[in-house]
Amino acid sequence: MKEFFEPSSIAVVGATPKVPKPGYVILTNLKRSFKGRLYAVNPKYEKVLGVPCYKSLREIPDNVDLAVVVVPTHAVEKVVDDAIAKGVKAVIIITAGFSEVGNKELEKRVTSKLRANGIRVIGPNCLGVYYGRTGVDTFFFREPGTPRPPLSDTAIISQSGALAASILDWASVEGIGIGAAVSLGNKADVNEVEVMEYLASKEFNKFLLYVEGLRAGEGEEFLATLAELSSIGKRIGIYKGGRTKASERAVSSHTASVAGDYKVYRDLVSEYGAIALEDFTEVVSFLSAFQYSPPLRGTRALVVTDAGGVGVMLADALPLDLPRPVSVELESKLPDYVKLNNPMDVGGDADDERYRLVLEYLAPKYDLVIVVALMESPATTLYLADIVKESMEATGKPHLLLSFGGVMSNALEKRARELGIPFSKSVDEAVAFSRLLLKEMTSRKLLEVRTKCY
Amino acid sequence: MKEFFEPSSIAVVGATPKVPKPGYVILTNLKRSFKGRLYAVNPKYEKVLGVPCYKSLREIPDNVDLAVVVVPTHAVEKVVDDAIAKGVKAVIIITAGFSEVGNKELEKRVTSKLRANGIRVIGPNCLGVYYGRTGVDTFFFREPGTPRPPLSDTAIISQSGALAASILDWASVEGIGIGAAVSLGNKADVNEVEVMEYLASKEFNKFLLYVEGLRAGEGEEFLATLAELSSIGKRIGIYKGGRTKASERAVSSHTASVAGDYKVYRDLVSEYGAIALEDFTEVVSFLSAFQYSPPLRGTRALVVTDAGGVGVMLADALPLDLPRPVSVELESKLPDYVKLNNPMDVGGDADDERYRLVLEYLAPKYDLVIVVALMESPATTLYLADIVKESMEATGKPHLLLSFGGVMSNALEKRARELGIPFSKSVDEAVAFSRLLLKEMTSRKLLEVRTKCY
Repeated sequence: MKEFFEPSSIAVVGATPKVPKPGYVILTNLKRSFKGRLYAVNPKYEKVLGVPCYKSLREIPDNVDLAVVVVPTHAVEKVVDDAIAKGVKAVIIITAGFSEVGNKELEKRVTSKLRANGIRVIGPNCLGVYYGRTGVDTFFFREPGTPRPPLSDTAIISQSGALAASILDWASVEGIGIGAAVSLGNKADVNEVEVMEYLASKEFNKFLLYVEGLRAGEGEEFLATLAELSSIGKRIGIYKGGRTKASERAVSSHTASVAGDYKVYRDLVSEYGAIALEDFTEVVSFLSAFQYSPPLRGTRALVVTDAGGVGVMLADALPLDLPRPVSVELESKLPDYVKLNNPMDVGGDADDERYRLVLEYLAPKYDLVIVVALMESPATTLYLADIVKESMEATGKPHLLLSFGGVMSNALEKRARELGIPFSKSVDEAVAFSRLLLKEMTSRKLLEVRTKCY
Repeated sequence: MKEFFEPSSIAVVGATPKVPKPGYVILTNLKRSFKGRLYAVNPKYEKVLGVPCYKSLREIPDNVDLAVVVVPTHAVEKVVDDAIAKGVKAVIIITAGFSEVGNKELEKRVTSKLRANGIRVIGPNCLGVYYGRTGVDTFFFREPGTPRPPLSDTAIISQSGALAASILDWASVEGIGIGAAVSLGNKADVNEVEVMEYLASKEFNKFLLYVEGLRAGEGEEFLATLAELSSIGKRIGIYKGGRTKASERAVSSHTASVAGDYKVYRDLVSEYGAIALEDFTEVVSFLSAFQYSPPLRGTRALVVTDAGGVGVMLADALPLDLPRPVSVELESKLPDYVKLNNPMDVGGDADDERYRLVLEYLAPKYDLVIVVALMESPATTLYLADIVKESMEATGKPHLLLSFGGVMSNALEKRARELGIPFSKSVDEAVAFSRLLLKEMTSRKLLEVRTKCY
C-alpha cells in the first residue's frame, strides 16, 4: 500500500498537454505538489508540461513505484501489460468503462494479471489518491489550480469520486482540514479495509467513509477493522449509500456494488465502534465540527446564545438533556435582565466578556457546550472564537461555536477554522454534531461490551 | 397597519450620533433607504446625522405616522404619552425589559394607553419592520451599512428578532430574495394575523413565520387566516418553536409566550393549508428553493446527476417516487455508457448539452426534476442554470439545481440566484425542498376536503 501514498516516483500514463483532459489536469497537479520523481507516458510527446515523456512505461529509465492510468478503456490492458513488464509496484486506474457498465470480464482480467504479479490496483472508475503530506494528487478537477484543504488527521475514503472531489473542493474554500482522500471506484482490488489500516498506521485518526456496498465475504473483515481501529481511539464515520430500491439500483449502475440491508448494516457498524452517518448534514458536521472535538462523556448539554429564537430551535432538536444551571456567584456578575437558564440567553447586547463569564462558571458543569453568536448584534467580536477555544481546552469538554448570517458571521467562521475549533453554520449542523458525539459515546460502550463478552 | 409599512413620516425616538447604539444604526439605515420624511427625537441634539432633531415627539412641526422607540425601558412610558399627545398613528417599541423579564404591568399599561387612543404597537422587545419597497427599516445590525436582500414576494414574520436579522443578513450575502421582515417580539398588540393579512393585500405571496406561541383565544383566528390566505394561493411556512420542555422554558423567558402542544399544532396547520417547517434546513430551503418553485402536482421525481454518489444519497432520502425513464429516442442520442435510469447518471464527462437533452425528453414525464451538477468535473458551464430555468418554464414543473463544492459551485449558485430558480447547496436542503413541496400538496388537499365538509 505504501506506493499509493508515498511513492518515490510516479508515471502518468495518458499525460497530455491538451486542456482540460484528465491527463493534463493530473500532471499539472502532481507537478505542483508531488515531491518525488515524475514521468509522463504518451507516444506523441517527448515532454509534456516540461515533464519527460516516454512512449510506454517500459521505456522509463528509472523505477516506477506508482502508475496512474488515464488512457481510454480499450487501451488499459496494454498499459497493464507494460506495467507488469516494467515492474511497477502499484497502479491507479482512473479510466471508467468497466464493471459499472457491464464490462466485468475486462475488469477481472486486468486485475487478475496485476495481482498475479504482485501489483496492487486502486479503481478502475475512480479519481484515485490525494495525500496532502506527500503531494500525491490524482484528483482531477475542472480547474488545475484548484486549492487543496489545510492538512488534518482526517482521511476520506469514498466509492464516489465526484463526491470526494466536491468535499475536497468545499473544504478548501471553507478552511476545513482533510489530510487524505481516496476514491476507490469499482474496488476491483484495494478496498476500504486496507486503506484504513494503512492510513491508521500513519498520522490519521479520523476516517470519513462513503460506502455503497461490500463484496460477499468482505463484511467480517470490515467490521473487525472498525473494532480494531476504534479500540485504539480512531474515529470512523460511515455514510452507507443505497438504502431504498431506487438507490440500490443507482448503486448497482454507479459502482457495481450490492447495497445490502441498511438497518442491519447500521446496527452492526455501531456495535463495532463506528458511527453510522444518517444524512448529508451529518457528513458535513463530521468534517466541520466533530473532527475538531474531544469525545463526549455524558449527556448534559449547555446552550449559550445571544439569539433567543436559535436557543429555542436548538432546544427543540438537541438529543441531549438541558438541565438548568445554578450559580449564585455568576448571577451576581450578570446584568439583572440576564437570567440563568438553559438555553442560556445572554441577551442581544452581550459582549465577549459576558460569554466568557458564563463559560467560566458553567462549562465545567456540563458535558457539551454550544455557543451561539449571531454577529448582527453589536457587542461581540471575533475573539469569541478564542474564548470558546480557551473554555474547550480548560475543560476538555466538547464545545461548538454556531453562527450564521452575513460577512461578520463568515469572519467568525474563518477565525474558528484558524483555531481549529468545532464550528457550525446551521442549527441542524449543530444538532447533527451533538448526535455524532452521542452516537460515538454509545458505539464505544457497545464495543466495550462486545469485547468483554466474546 | 398601513403606517407600519408605508408611513409618510417616521420619528426615531432615542436617535443618537453615538456608534454603535441602536438609535444610531436605525437612523443611519432609515436615512439610506426611507423615502418619506424623517425626524430624530433626543433632548440633547438639534440635529443627528444631519436629520432634524427635537426634544420630544410633541415638538415635531409635522404629522408623525410612525414612531420608532429606542429609549431605555424606564423612559418608554413618557414617550408613549408624548406619542398620544402628538397623535402618532403607529409605534414600534424596540426597547426590551418588559414581560419577557417579568415586567408585565408596564407592558400592559403602555399598550392599553396606546390602544385606547387608536394607536397600534409592534413589540416591545423586537427589531420592528423591514419593508424593502418603501425603505422602512428598523432592523439594527452591527454594521450600519449591512446590505439588504434582493426584493421578492416573500415576507418573514418572526417572534425572534435576532433570527430574522440573521436570515436577512444571510439572504443578502446569498442573493436570496426577501421583500419584508417583521420582528414581533412580545406581541403586546400587533400579531402574526394582522401582519399577514396586510402584506397579503400587498405584493406578498409567500410567508415564512417563526412563531413561539399564540395567546389564549388567538388560535382560531390564526387558523382561519391560514385557510383564507392558502385558499387564494398564498404559501405559508411556519416554524413553531418550543416543542420540548427545555425549549418551552426558553420560549417563556424569550418572548413570554406559551408554547402549546407541538403535534396538535402541526396537524392543525396542515389541515388549514399551511406548511409546518420541522427543522432549520426546511426554513433555509423555503427561502432558497421553495419560494422560487411552482407547486408540485404529483409524486414522480427525476434525479439527473453527474455524480453517482450524490444520486445515491438523494435516492436514499427523497420522499418521492423515482420511476425509471423510458425513451428510445433519448437513448439513441446519448453515449453508450450513459444508461437511462433514475437517478439518471449522465456521467462525469457530461456537458450542458447532455443535460439539456435529458431534460428535454424526460422532464415533461415527471412532477419534480432535481438536477445535480458538481462543478469539479470539466465539461459543464454556468449556462446549466439557464438550461434548468428553460426546462422549468417549458414544463411548469418544479425544478431544483443542486451543487456544492468550491469556487465554480458558488458561481453556479450566483447564476441560479440571478435567474430566480430554486437552488440548494446540500443534499439535505434538496430533500427538504421536496418535502416542502409534498407537504404543500397534501396540505392543499386537506384544506379542500375541509372546505367541502364544513
